[in-house]
Amino acid sequence: MPRYDAPIRDMQFILHDFLSLQNYSNLPGFEDATPDLIDAILEESGKFAKDVLAPLNMVGDTQGCIRNNDGSVKTPDGFKQAYSQMVENGWPLLSKTPEMGGQGLPHILQMACSEMTSSANMAFGMYPGLTAGAYEALMEGGSDELKQKYGPNMAAAKWAGTMNLTEPQCGTDLGLIKTKAVAQGDSSYKITGQKIWISGGEQDLTENIIHLVLARIEGAPDGIRGISLFVVPKFIVNDDGSLGARNLATCGGLEEKMGIHGNATCVMNFDGASGWLVGEENKGMRTMFVMMNQARLGVGLQGLSQAEVAYQNAVDFAQDRLQMRSLKGPVAPDKPADPIIVHPDVRRMLMDQKAFIEGARAFAYWTALFGDLQHKSPDEKIRESAEDYMALMTPVIKAFLTDRGHKMTNEAQQVLGGSGFTKEWGLEQFVRDCRITLIYEGTNGIQALDLVGRKLAANGGRAVFRFFAEMDDFIGSNSDDADMAPFIEGLTLAKTQLQEGTTWLMQNGMSDFNNAGAGSTDYLQLFGLTALGYIWSKMAKVAFEKRGDDPYYDDKITTGKYYMARVLPETGSHLAKLKTGAEPVMALAADRF
Amino acid sequence: MPRYDAPIRDMQFILHDFLSLQNYSNLPGFEDATPDLIDAILEESGKFAKDVLAPLNMVGDTQGCIRNNDGSVKTPDGFKQAYSQMVENGWPLLSKTPEMGGQGLPHILQMACSEMTSSANMAFGMYPGLTAGAYEALMEGGSDELKQKYGPNMAAAKWAGTMNLTEPQCGTDLGLIKTKAVAQGDSSYKITGQKIWISGGEQDLTENIIHLVLARIEGAPDGIRGISLFVVPKFIVNDDGSLGARNLATCGGLEEKMGIHGNATCVMNFDGASGWLVGEENKGMRTMFVMMNQARLGVGLQGLSQAEVAYQNAVDFAQDRLQMRSLKGPVAPDKPADPIIVHPDVRRMLMDQKAFIEGARAFAYWTALFGDLQHKSPDEKIRESAEDYMALMTPVIKAFLTDRGHKMTNEAQQVLGGSGFTKEWGLEQFVRDCRITLIYEGTNGIQALDLVGRKLAANGGRAVFRFFAEMDDFIGSNSDDADMAPFIEGLTLAKTQLQEGTTWLMQNGMSDFNNAGAGSTDYLQLFGLTALGYIWSKMAKVAFEKRGDDPYYDDKITTGKYYMARVLPETGSHLAKLKTGAEPVMALAADRF
Repeated sequence: MPRYDAPIRDMQFILHDFLSLQNYSNLPGFEDATPDLIDAILEESGKFAKDVLAPLNMVGDTQGCIRNNDGSVKTPDGFKQAYSQMVENGWPLLSKTPEMGGQGLPHILQMACSEMTSSANMAFGMYPGLTAGAYEALMEGGSDELKQKYGPNMAAAKWAGTMNLTEPQCGTDLGLIKTKAVAQGDSSYKITGQKIWISGGEQDLTENIIHLVLARIEGAPDGIRGISLFVVPKFIVNDDGSLGARNLATCGGLEEKMGIHGNATCVMNFDGASGWLVGEENKGMRTMFVMMNQARLGVGLQGLSQAEVAYQNAVDFAQDRLQMRSLKGPVAPDKPADPIIVHPDVRRMLMDQKAFIEGARAFAYWTALFGDLQHKSPDEKIRESAEDYMALMTPVIKAFLTDRGHKMTNEAQQVLGGSGFTKEWGLEQFVRDCRITLIYEGTNGIQALDLVGRKLAANGGRAVFRFFAEMDDFIGSNSDDADMAPFIEGLTLAKTQLQEGTTWLMQNGMSDFNNAGAGSTDYLQLFGLTALGYIWSKMAKVAFEKRGDDPYYDDKITTGKYYMARVLPETGSHLAKLKTGAEPVMALAADRF
Repeated sequence: MPRYDAPIRDMQFILHDFLSLQNYSNLPGFEDATPDLIDAILEESGKFAKDVLAPLNMVGDTQGCIRNNDGSVKTPDGFKQAYSQMVENGWPLLSKTPEMGGQGLPHILQMACSEMTSSANMAFGMYPGLTAGAYEALMEGGSDELKQKYGPNMAAAKWAGTMNLTEPQCGTDLGLIKTKAVAQGDSSYKITGQKIWISGGEQDLTENIIHLVLARIEGAPDGIRGISLFVVPKFIVNDDGSLGARNLATCGGLEEKMGIHGNATCVMNFDGASGWLVGEENKGMRTMFVMMNQARLGVGLQGLSQAEVAYQNAVDFAQDRLQMRSLKGPVAPDKPADPIIVHPDVRRMLMDQKAFIEGARAFAYWTALFGDLQHKSPDEKIRESAEDYMALMTPVIKAFLTDRGHKMTNEAQQVLGGSGFTKEWGLEQFVRDCRITLIYEGTNGIQALDLVGRKLAANGGRAVFRFFAEMDDFIGSNSDDADMAPFIEGLTLAKTQLQEGTTWLMQNGMSDFNNAGAGSTDYLQLFGLTALGYIWSKMAKVAFEKRGDDPYYDDKITTGKYYMARVLPETGSHLAKLKTGAEPVMALAADRF
């Protein structure tokens, strides 16, 4: 069975050294987040992930979820107990607002804990993960009454939350939603329709499930402008907070799928279920996007999390497995063969993984900090730039971290050779579980379109130009630092290429939208590679400063150099592909495929 | 359920137009392979794949193989019947030598049929595929007695064959094999040991199973120089050809794995089983390599085959699924949304797949033709160059076609969005089944080492220099052809980069073997990309010549241009990575991962 040990040292480096959280102690929530508290939280969360969640990961995959004839769903053995323990320990409350019973700590801490949960047991982690997303949407769009009614229990994850968007005829294109809502004259609506692929739509972990459902109010405009958001609890919540009647929101079936078997993927039937409007009529998408944006960061983190746990097990295997001699002569002459970690091609795979994981983690956490600043900074300028960055980076984190995370999880599997293909080593499960991250919460292609079509152009390109300026500043102020030369050189080239790609898109994407569409995925890759190049350069700078007795910092520099030399050069081919424009992509007639 | 239709038109283009098989009618076997016969074979083989094998693919995945308490193994429902039908129709005999009852047709035809079998049902195809490999090894290394005893039934696949190499302590490093062979003084040996991951080690499809087993004869030298090859039948074959006693070669268990569930992956226990030496004592690896080389081409083809069937189903989905409007305005205004094939990013994914598949198929068949020429050409020069090319291209086909095939299968899955992750659409099975192709018959990392460490240097680099010269000739003789300009331009750059990478390896790989190891995978990718660029250029040349009423040729040119513009530019980053040498790869201490 695979193991998982939370990468606490790396998280500490990011939170303490790289992001210097201690410098934000003037912000609400941050004042309590002392280095000691952060370390204690990481430690405890890591233990829970390792001891409680990780051992259930393979159980969840093997057993899956079972739908009983009455529509109830049984989660895998041990999930219920682990879930209760998680709630009792108060993990979901970490970063929730004190008004809802939360501890009010920075979101970035919750993010670190979420990464651990996902690495240890991704299918399990989706239950509290989606609950947190639904909670945020309710906090953003719901009336005070709704917030009071559902907020505290959802904050604590005593009640779960779900997102009900997809219908058989629409996933990406939510304007095609058919689910209907009919006002009952008493602030409630009757919701009727079918939703599919609803993660955690039914389960036996929580006493209530709060579905957030997109539906169309009778007489609403066609398309996306006629979509409203409703809260539809599994059990009606009485005014005193007690649970009342079973609502007509039931699980009609479970999806059979490639992975995340421990999470129940439900067909949800709403048969005149009682629902309450969240926010304004026909403005449901606005609130749903709050949830989706949070979920997209979470999904990016899932991609990273699978790469991390896969990497750990690949390293173990590479250290233990004896096969062939080093190309430079025996390293372990007393053994029948050398451990395969001596082989450069095995080392290449492990370094690819390590360089991605550490860079991606720092990138994700760096972005998550903007999520905190966006809400908590007293400085309007900082709030604005934080919001800009969150918007700009969200599709990149979702798509780049899952796309590369999946590649790296596959590469970890590859390190194990035949053992990687067998169930017992667990690597193949990580690959299967990870695969969904490239698809849900908007496929990676949709993320690329979001980046190119919306995020680049927003506010006249303010966010991306700010990002370029920030990189230019960094390059300028480190150009005389000999230690930093390999970083500055690589970053300068990548940044120039990203800028060239951006300019190309701005010039050619408007005259022919297909140019933007055809180049979107390559642009996102170019962006992600460059962003990680920047983050690695910044981490190296810190590591050079902190360098001393702790070899951790030397390793950080070594890994960063690997990234610059052996990963970042991929930018060139993405730029070349992008600049072909739509012509080669669209030249073949649609009926000639 | 997914569909499969054999890509007969594309195979015809390759066999008739591109490779002009009709020009080889002076060679034995080829004289019978008239265009009409080839077309008839492709047609019939395609029907069998579509109607009989494809419908069993998902059954095989769902049911898997079951080991009964007595050690017998039940294959999935329908496999036995389909297998019998395959044998009755004589498919396995197509290219076998007439002395063993075969039809003696070119191997390249068998290759086309194998591709169909693999696309339709990869797990099923492994049974006859490995049988053909074992047969070839026996033909290469076995005595006349062994050939007569086992040859005809194996040629017809009435008896199956297996490869028994791996043991718990060794996969790649066969020098560590412990399985023992003790001479009995009567030409037989007693074989004792355990083999793992034996595909088709036990099944209920054939009346006998002929295991080829690597073992160490008592007193043999240590390591790879003390390995001998034995034939170990499940049932002892009497001198009159009838079946005798059950041999002590039994299935001790089935492996639980990520995919190819329809194929029984067995732990094989040899408990003093009777075996007969194939070839000379301690020279087992030489013969086994015959089998492995054939198997490696077959595995490359499997990678391609999964990409092909996945692509077909992705195209269907993209044509049918209505979601969002074209970026340039509605294409199907009468429908609620446009088919997703209008979207450039969907088109990009499909073009990636198409350009890979058609290029890879032509590359594999082009190489397979050398397999025929190597044995059948009366011209010693041609035989030599054919053998050189086979040796050089085998690791590239194995690793490049499976690596990219897996990527493309994943990309096809991605086209389906959420549906791609569900079992019912079948794409996720293609991804899981395809995953093993990067691992077995020597991981792709091992293929890269074989290419860099053995194949490049063989005969002073004769093969690779011949390949460069061939490309130079092609470039030279087409440099004035305006139609060919986009091909010649791209090919010239790629060839220059490949040559630069080759020179770099020759200069730096000898002084430090780790430089060769660290660059091997990038070199193989660079090689594969360039080889496909060459093949695409050659195909385009043919298509320009044949161009007329049939839009097939225009599509071929369009797809080739896509390859040159949007795939081939990846060569640059592989060269850059290769040229960093081992330093960044090996810099981190082994215990610091």
